[in-house]
Amino acid sequence: MFKKILIANRGEIALRIIRTCREMGIKSVAVYSTADEESLHVRFADEAVCIGPAQSNLSYLKMSNIIAAAEITNADAIHPGYGFLSENSKFSKICQEHNIKFIGASPEMIDRMGDKASAKATMKAAGVPTVPGSDGLIESFEQCEKIAAEIGYPVMLKATAGGGGKGMREVWKKEDLRKAWDSARQEAAAAFGNDGMYMEKLIEEPRHIEIQIVGDSTGRACHLSERDCSIQRRHQKLTEETPSPFMTKKLRTEMGNAAVKAAEYIKYEGAGTIEFLVDKHRNFYFMEMNTRIQVEHPITEQVIDYDLIREQILVAAGIPISGKNYTPNLHSIECRINAEDPYNDFRPSPGKITVLHAPGGHGVRLDTHVYAGYTIVPYYDSMIAKLITTAQTREEAINKMKRALDEFVIEGIKTTIPFHRQLMDHPDYIAGNYTTAFMNTFKMKDPEEME
Amino acid sequence: MFKKILIANRGEIALRIIRTCREMGIKSVAVYSTADEESLHVRFADEAVCIGPAQSNLSYLKMSNIIAAAEITNADAIHPGYGFLSENSKFSKICQEHNIKFIGASPEMIDRMGDKASAKATMKAAGVPTVPGSDGLIESFEQCEKIAAEIGYPVMLKATAGGGGKGMREVWKKEDLRKAWDSARQEAAAAFGNDGMYMEKLIEEPRHIEIQIVGDSTGRACHLSERDCSIQRRHQKLTEETPSPFMTKKLRTEMGNAAVKAAEYIKYEGAGTIEFLVDKHRNFYFMEMNTRIQVEHPITEQVIDYDLIREQILVAAGIPISGKNYTPNLHSIECRINAEDPYNDFRPSPGKITVLHAPGGHGVRLDTHVYAGYTIVPYYDSMIAKLITTAQTREEAINKMKRALDEFVIEGIKTTIPFHRQLMDHPDYIAGNYTTAFMNTFKMKDPEEME
Repeated sequence: MFKKILIANRGEIALRIIRTCREMGIKSVAVYSTADEESLHVRFADEAVCIGPAQSNLSYLKMSNIIAAAEITNADAIHPGYGFLSENSKFSKICQEHNIKFIGASPEMIDRMGDKASAKATMKAAGVPTVPGSDGLIESFEQCEKIAAEIGYPVMLKATAGGGGKGMREVWKKEDLRKAWDSARQEAAAAFGNDGMYMEKLIEEPRHIEIQIVGDSTGRACHLSERDCSIQRRHQKLTEETPSPFMTKKLRTEMGNAAVKAAEYIKYEGAGTIEFLVDKHRNFYFMEMNTRIQVEHPITEQVIDYDLIREQILVAAGIPISGKNYTPNLHSIECRINAEDPYNDFRPSPGKITVLHAPGGHGVRLDTHVYAGYTIVPYYDSMIAKLITTAQTREEAINKMKRALDEFVIEGIKTTIPFHRQLMDHPDYIAGNYTTAFMNTFKMKDPEEME
Repeated sequence: MFKKILIANRGEIALRIIRTCREMGIKSVAVYSTADEESLHVRFADEAVCIGPAQSNLSYLKMSNIIAAAEITNADAIHPGYGFLSENSKFSKICQEHNIKFIGASPEMIDRMGDKASAKATMKAAGVPTVPGSDGLIESFEQCEKIAAEIGYPVMLKATAGGGGKGMREVWKKEDLRKAWDSARQEAAAAFGNDGMYMEKLIEEPRHIEIQIVGDSTGRACHLSERDCSIQRRHQKLTEETPSPFMTKKLRTEMGNAAVKAAEYIKYEGAGTIEFLVDKHRNFYFMEMNTRIQVEHPITEQVIDYDLIREQILVAAGIPISGKNYTPNLHSIECRINAEDPYNDFRPSPGKITVLHAPGGHGVRLDTHVYAGYTIVPYYDSMIAKLITTAQTREEAINKMKRALDEFVIEGIKTTIPFHRQLMDHPDYIAGNYTTAFMNTFKMKDPEEME
């Protein structure tokens, strides 16, 4: 087993990983930018190394500094968390070259699944349903027009290097294709330095439902059921739940089997997530694979009493998984608490937290790196906490979330707590009747209109 | 279902009950003494009524004030929590007379099980093993001597109205009996206004293992497995765990069956606990029954994903239980965090909390009514928080508790956090090798000796 793990990340996920290291008796090394000196991940790790200034590209993305920190502290493994270098094949390779175990996917796997076109081709070969569309990159506008005509409108243009909604365009009719093609390519070039585009059939009334999988070095994989992440704003997930209210036993078996088949086909090692779009007829289509831990992993942990970070570490150390597929018999919901103002278009709201009171009690889990007196800096992701409630039924989990949100006091900054509180009262959410388009029509109510 | 429940208690248990009320859509009424104005139970209830000054007998024990508060606020039920009026048959009766549902045992049940001698006779009649001893109250010192000779030394003298260790004496040889008899009676008379005594065989190397039961109005009962509460100091529990490290499958079946048999024999309604002493040969003996929720109920909730307060409310509303016995497949530990100085004979340490940082993350539950800025008053029980960790194995639950205790920061007062931290490192605790005598030899290590 590893003796010391460096965590190449910050915020709640760094703290999350440090906690499991501590529980496993593994020493932990935090790295931090000068802007993060006061963060709990620095305080709770066994050692901490400053790796640069606030800007990510000079600290949390600066591979040489992170490798140097691992070497100075004698860490024998690096956990990259999510975001930053977690799906960077070059970093995975550099770790290999320095004889430091990267707790994540191999460089080859990251390349194979990170490129969306190559990922889709792989999944197709594995027999996993994929969305009809271009076979790989589109070479010209003429080809683009031809494919759209073949698969039929509406279609979706997507940047091959994309993420977070950048370089994506819905096209509902032929006349709009040219403009979408040009602007998406421009946007992709600017954001990723890569204007490669592909096209897919636009799935109407889609739900984003993902399957958590774990594979090991023997080539075996299992699935840990689904997470419904359809409540998104500009392709950023806001809240997730498991089981999906749209799920059936049959669909779970089909999607679970497809995910395990895919993972075994590519001999996937570690924790990963296969994201699917599910249409209103319960057809499902491979969307993308994340070769890392997800933000929303705790809801899976809650319903199956399983520590996913621990499992990542065990698999990375060569220990085989049990191979058992899990079906949840509880219900769990996560609300991402962001330092954003939901009454003002979710504008970021950095600043100092003056008062913080955390909710607690039965069925409540809170993962956060902030505290009263902590200053949220504007350089990074605005997520400051994940509030998770778990109960025997969906209705109880929602009611628990309402009371936990009511108890949660954060003063000094704006947060998305009021958004989640209103969401939990929304009739369509309560009915489980939502798609990825939910936020397009959601409007915050004036607080004075609330009871 | 009840529309509004008044919680006749304070502190963490009042907050605990309010949380479940909120989750069930039931309005809650807090009552508070003038010393508790700043407590979270007052802030989080839908309504709050001041019922008197700091002294318990003028507020939390003042039945007329509590009934008046229920009538003013139109509460249709009262939840008494634990302690205070929770096992007071007169209060249960007064609630009945005022047509307010008492969420607890009937007056007759409280009288029957509250008097230790009568409880023991009842259990004997139900076929539950009891400790050999006097058949009811001892009428004279001569009879006392005779019974002791019959059952053999060592014996234990106990006040029939006793609790919390008052009016109890271990007697190891005949010559010491007279002194013990006199002093125990005096102490009992002073503490309870009742000097009635009974005698039991002293169980050597005993463990305190209790079975949680739930019964309903149809006469059906089930058990929710055991809790090991052997780590006690002066008969006050410090930490509890489930499963008991001493438990076997066979013993759980036997004890569980005995507890269910007892509950069904007395037609017990609601949540209750049957406390047993288990000797080193795994013989078990009925000790006492608590006809209320226990402080340590969360560990049971954690391992069976069950809300016991909710169950109490449902049963009180006449809804039948499922009747299923539960066997835990997880491990859960509770540490009672008290405002006491473990380096100074656990002396109470009231005062203002200046800094509070709560632990969180996977497998951690915290039930507390305090916060940074809260002042602990000297009038009540010194418990300020219950920290609960849950994992797949005992070892993992202990490791999780260690890291949660390490994260838990409370400044301004002394707490028992350092005691629990040292306990979790104690070889006998880690080995699960402890009895109720554990604390007799436990010594705090100097903090400077710790790593």
